[in-house]
Amino acid sequence: MSLEEKVLPRLRPTEEVKARLGKAVKDLESRTKKAAARTGLPLETMLVGSVAKGTYVGIPDIDLFVLFPPEVERGDLEKDGLRIGKDVLDGETRYAEHPYTHGKFQGFEVDLVPCYKIDDPSKLRSAVDRTPFHTRYVLGRLGFDQQDQVRLLKQFMKGIGVYGAEARVQGFSGYLTELLTLTYGDFAGVIKEASGWRPGLILSADRSKKGGGDTPMTFADPVDAKRNVASALSLDCLSLFIHACREYQKEPDERFFFPAKREVMKIGDLRKAFAVRGMSPFVVVLDRPDLVDDNLYPQVQRTLLGLRKLLEAHDFKVLAQSYVVDRDVRLVYELESSELPQGRLHIGPPAWTENAEEFLAKWRDGGLGQPFLADGRWQVYVEREFREPVTLLKQNGTKAALGNDFRELSGLLCYAKAKAFRSENRPVLTKLVDKRENWRV
Amino acid sequence: MSLEEKVLPRLRPTEEVKARLGKAVKDLESRTKKAAARTGLPLETMLVGSVAKGTYVGIPDIDLFVLFPPEVERGDLEKDGLRIGKDVLDGETRYAEHPYTHGKFQGFEVDLVPCYKIDDPSKLRSAVDRTPFHTRYVLGRLGFDQQDQVRLLKQFMKGIGVYGAEARVQGFSGYLTELLTLTYGDFAGVIKEASGWRPGLILSADRSKKGGGDTPMTFADPVDAKRNVASALSLDCLSLFIHACREYQKEPDERFFFPAKREVMKIGDLRKAFAVRGMSPFVVVLDRPDLVDDNLYPQVQRTLLGLRKLLEAHDFKVLAQSYVVDRDVRLVYELESSELPQGRLHIGPPAWTENAEEFLAKWRDGGLGQPFLADGRWQVYVEREFREPVTLLKQNGTKAALGNDFRELSGLLCYAKAKAFRSENRPVLTKLVDKRENWRV
Repeated sequence: MSLEEKVLPRLRPTEEVKARLGKAVKDLESRTKKAAARTGLPLETMLVGSVAKGTYVGIPDIDLFVLFPPEVERGDLEKDGLRIGKDVLDGETRYAEHPYTHGKFQGFEVDLVPCYKIDDPSKLRSAVDRTPFHTRYVLGRLGFDQQDQVRLLKQFMKGIGVYGAEARVQGFSGYLTELLTLTYGDFAGVIKEASGWRPGLILSADRSKKGGGDTPMTFADPVDAKRNVASALSLDCLSLFIHACREYQKEPDERFFFPAKREVMKIGDLRKAFAVRGMSPFVVVLDRPDLVDDNLYPQVQRTLLGLRKLLEAHDFKVLAQSYVVDRDVRLVYELESSELPQGRLHIGPPAWTENAEEFLAKWRDGGLGQPFLADGRWQVYVEREFREPVTLLKQNGTKAALGNDFRELSGLLCYAKAKAFRSENRPVLTKLVDKRENWRV
Repeated sequence: MSLEEKVLPRLRPTEEVKARLGKAVKDLESRTKKAAARTGLPLETMLVGSVAKGTYVGIPDIDLFVLFPPEVERGDLEKDGLRIGKDVLDGETRYAEHPYTHGKFQGFEVDLVPCYKIDDPSKLRSAVDRTPFHTRYVLGRLGFDQQDQVRLLKQFMKGIGVYGAEARVQGFSGYLTELLTLTYGDFAGVIKEASGWRPGLILSADRSKKGGGDTPMTFADPVDAKRNVASALSLDCLSLFIHACREYQKEPDERFFFPAKREVMKIGDLRKAFAVRGMSPFVVVLDRPDLVDDNLYPQVQRTLLGLRKLLEAHDFKVLAQSYVVDRDVRLVYELESSELPQGRLHIGPPAWTENAEEFLAKWRDGGLGQPFLADGRWQVYVEREFREPVTLLKQNGTKAALGNDFRELSGLLCYAKAKAFRSENRPVLTKLVDKRENWRV
């Protein structure tokens, strides 16, 4: 029995779940149709997503779309869409790019989403109008056996940490796993193919493959060739996937699908890890803004990068960084040193320029020593403004390029060197230090 | 009375020197002619250099050339040239690019140099054949008043430290000062013109000026336009000269011509200078090879640069460097730190390459922590081979790009941090720390 055959039973829905799910979908559709009718508009409903396609793993969310005629104005679609949602679900309104209703129904998470019923998927009126086309495309092509193959691929990606197109992950979407399975036949086909991928690759459903793309990966959407299904995929996720596929081929292991739980490291072990390489941790704590994940994570990532650049602009050598979003947002940087020398070499203008005079006037008495010429340019040792990162961030942190909702750096706390080794920082420090791939934990 | 008028009397030869010099030249020429006659060849003698042109400052060297017919073979020219030298002077044979005799004659230093008498200065047979043309060119054009102007310019350049085309200085040759004076009329004209120079400038005796040259400065030799009279001039000397001209124009001062003596700093003051900016000195002592200056200095400079690159390749941040050649050769580097962390981040191949596997096999167990992917590449913390510069130089110093006669690093001694502050290092540390221009000492 192959490893995949051993794994599959754990991925397929149980008869009990299938039965509950079937009833829930039926009841949900009927309630939604009734609520839709009350609007007086000719609305249709359509089950989409992994439940419609039979490619879900575990307990799925149900995605039910309400299709509006294109004549309806955008404002009315949103208003009526949310009203139907309110009638059907005891839920909440969510806004990502598009307003919809999220709630619980007979024990399942449900998204009830209004969209336009359009003829041509390249001519969207709202961001989600393409979804029904995706569902029909996959339903029309995916064989019954291939549903299992999609499940394997999804679980493999979940296991190694690259599943999901959302900003938190920047990985592979469900639709992309289905397209990959359709294109390369089965799970093993995708794994084999991906072992030879290189960033910049351009794929399409007809199995064509070329390089030279300007994003990590391009997969032309078969329902709208101009769109890249893999547009959300980051270089990190793509390279981790390539690496995992190679390692899995050499040595298949259940742990790719079901990794062990990663333990948060003890303070003593964290301290030791930094001591062994002689580096210094720097932890930044920020208030967590009240945003949905798809808005929050890009801002956290932007803030992480912006503060890294600020540190580097002030001569701190940053070797690695990471973050954890929980009740607050914790960023961590690994610094070569968190205490820089008193002075720094300030490079000025060439001796033959107009500015040379001004530079000399400023630094003749203001520097740590006389200005001097080297390779034609004036240089002078000057006193460093920030010798350690805590003061830099407290005084100049808001000048960095930050996520919009982090612009004030609300709740800012900084912990450098020995002070970083405190209990609340264990998760984020662990994320920085424990670099094992999920399947090696 | 202008500053120049005040300075000039100190630069002109005294009547006593003129008389002694006149007699010495006459006697030297007559003795040389007699010795030349003994070869049986039709040889001529010619007085060249600053004595011939009347542009010397202080007690000059006498340069007397013996001109050989072009038919004489190179080997014979050298043999006969040195034999004449031996007859005339109780001197020594010197080889730079060309063999000649150096000795004392009636209290003056004398160079007795054989060369070919050629018709076309662009068709040299030996490296010095052009010199008689230079002498004739200047003699035929330089007015009596301009001799003083050349003296001013030479002394100014000596004072600020840019006079002499030899490798030790990489500055302005005597012939170049004469051409500049001829071109711009007088000392003040050169100073004014040079205040607006920029590296890459291309000059010629017809006062034409353009930019875009690929050396710091080009001055087309009027006796052979393809040759650059300023080919030896370094960017450092050119930019220091431009800077000095600007400062002199704003505030003329005798100290540009006659700088005060620079005192060697006390150990305590040196220690303080480094402490104030938080940097660390690193001194390298090497045996001085037995070479003439024009061969020695380029090798010292090459060695200085080669070791800097070695230090930088091993992550030491070098902010400045200097050297002193005395009984031994002492190099000094200013380091941001002379103790690096235990670990360093080793950047490996991208995840999708063939080499990825080899990298992982090597570092899975050999690194300070697990390899990890960042921006698509494998990275791993590894143990640093050299944490401080002394071991690096002692073990790997000879792998650096070094001057030929420094390849073995004979006599190597290294002093880092506090150990660098010892009496014998005071001159070289002073050169690094005391960055004042000569006229500000």
